[in-house]
Amino acid sequence: MSKSNPKKPVILITNDDDITSPGIRSLVEAVSDIGKVVVVAPDKPQSGMGHAITIGSPLRMNKVKLFGDIEAWQTSGTPVDCVKLAVDKVLHQKPDICLSGINHGANHSINVIYSGTMSAAMEASIEGIPSIGFSLLDYSYDADFNPAKAIVRKMVLELLSKKIKDPHFLLNVNIPNVPLKKIKGIKICKQAYAKYDEEFDERVDPQGKKYFWLTGVFKNFDKGKDTDVWALKNNYVSAVPIQFDLTHYQLKKQIEKENWFK
Amino acid sequence: MSKSNPKKPVILITNDDDITSPGIRSLVEAVSDIGKVVVVAPDKPQSGMGHAITIGSPLRMNKVKLFGDIEAWQTSGTPVDCVKLAVDKVLHQKPDICLSGINHGANHSINVIYSGTMSAAMEASIEGIPSIGFSLLDYSYDADFNPAKAIVRKMVLELLSKKIKDPHFLLNVNIPNVPLKKIKGIKICKQAYAKYDEEFDERVDPQGKKYFWLTGVFKNFDKGKDTDVWALKNNYVSAVPIQFDLTHYQLKKQIEKENWFK
Repeated sequence: MSKSNPKKPVILITNDDDITSPGIRSLVEAVSDIGKVVVVAPDKPQSGMGHAITIGSPLRMNKVKLFGDIEAWQTSGTPVDCVKLAVDKVLHQKPDICLSGINHGANHSINVIYSGTMSAAMEASIEGIPSIGFSLLDYSYDADFNPAKAIVRKMVLELLSKKIKDPHFLLNVNIPNVPLKKIKGIKICKQAYAKYDEEFDERVDPQGKKYFWLTGVFKNFDKGKDTDVWALKNNYVSAVPIQFDLTHYQLKKQIEKENWFK
Repeated sequence: MSKSNPKKPVILITNDDDITSPGIRSLVEAVSDIGKVVVVAPDKPQSGMGHAITIGSPLRMNKVKLFGDIEAWQTSGTPVDCVKLAVDKVLHQKPDICLSGINHGANHSINVIYSGTMSAAMEASIEGIPSIGFSLLDYSYDADFNPAKAIVRKMVLELLSKKIKDPHFLLNVNIPNVPLKKIKGIKICKQAYAKYDEEFDERVDPQGKKYFWLTGVFKNFDKGKDTDVWALKNNYVSAVPIQFDLTHYQLKKQIEKENWFK
């Protein structure tokens, strides 16, 4: 499979919407002249897959010709599986950067935890690959990705020009669904405490048996102006630096101080 | 479906190994006299499902009689789906506490991110339900859950006796696979940077087509004595307080200071 060109950065691209989606094509187009791009992405929609991995069954991976001369593989796995397969079986090395997306729809606030797009990017960051997940706030198949492509290009060029000190560098980038000239800038944010207030739609199948379908209304419980939800509402691109150490250090200190569980 | 008894705490129990596993039975047995227990768990193994949710297809949920008089439901969903269904369709309210497990196998260090057991507990914590995920360091079906049951009971009783200030209280508890008398205590820890060094086993199916199966060797890159991996190696129960705000505040500060993406 592929060998890297030492002069050009190797850019791994993946997503969760599936390899045929316009979002991943836009991502490839935005950066294809910046480095050697290799695409490894799911062969079917994998939205909401979170950090799922396939352990109880085998995976398939097939070469596809979808992006001209750019090497591309579709896999039967989750977005996280795609990153693992890319490193071990396609690149045989760590790429210089991993980009995930461009997701059709928002991945701000709590969505970072459910998102296959962001979980793929996080998997790369766990492996020590600087990584960015990109999402556009438009769920439609025919979304206009042109403003998003300009943002992606700007951010990737800047990132590749830097000496990144953090071995697990990861950003969650969301792009408002407005024309480029209306975008006020790129704002570094924190993750808002905003989430879906969920309900299950209760239905009956043709055999008379009950089934449930997840539905919900998005609610922002976070009034801060330093959050991704605030930034997006005000036509900024939001960029949240993300970590995978989930330790709640403040709670740890409190429990230790109060001598719980002794 | 169920209504709560105001005198007894309502305890929601779920897992990722599936509703028939000995681990969830042990969890039910450990706390069944402490409160009103309701079980909502997957109808098939869901290990490694992370924070996956089911959005593109409907869910089924059926009542089962597996735990004597205790109300129990099996669902076709992921562990996170189970928690959502439990709150919206079974309990019609938030339980006083959510317990997930007891997982057959470790969920320390980076595993917290891939684990269905911990993702279910995290989902409850996002909803404002104090929650603990329990895992025993023994993958076998015939594991001895008796020491783990004693630990679970002690921790749940203590937790229920406290005024928990944190609205999203969440612990990742791992229990070493040793007799109770060898357990040195419960240690509050941070998540170790320890992970699987993964490879895919490459195989050929009976039709001559290639397939891949995930495999790997566990490696600890974290030399600290304050980590869950260290605690477990030294026969302590590890308890890591967990948060779902993934913002990397230190990196945020650095990027802001250096004026990136302007």
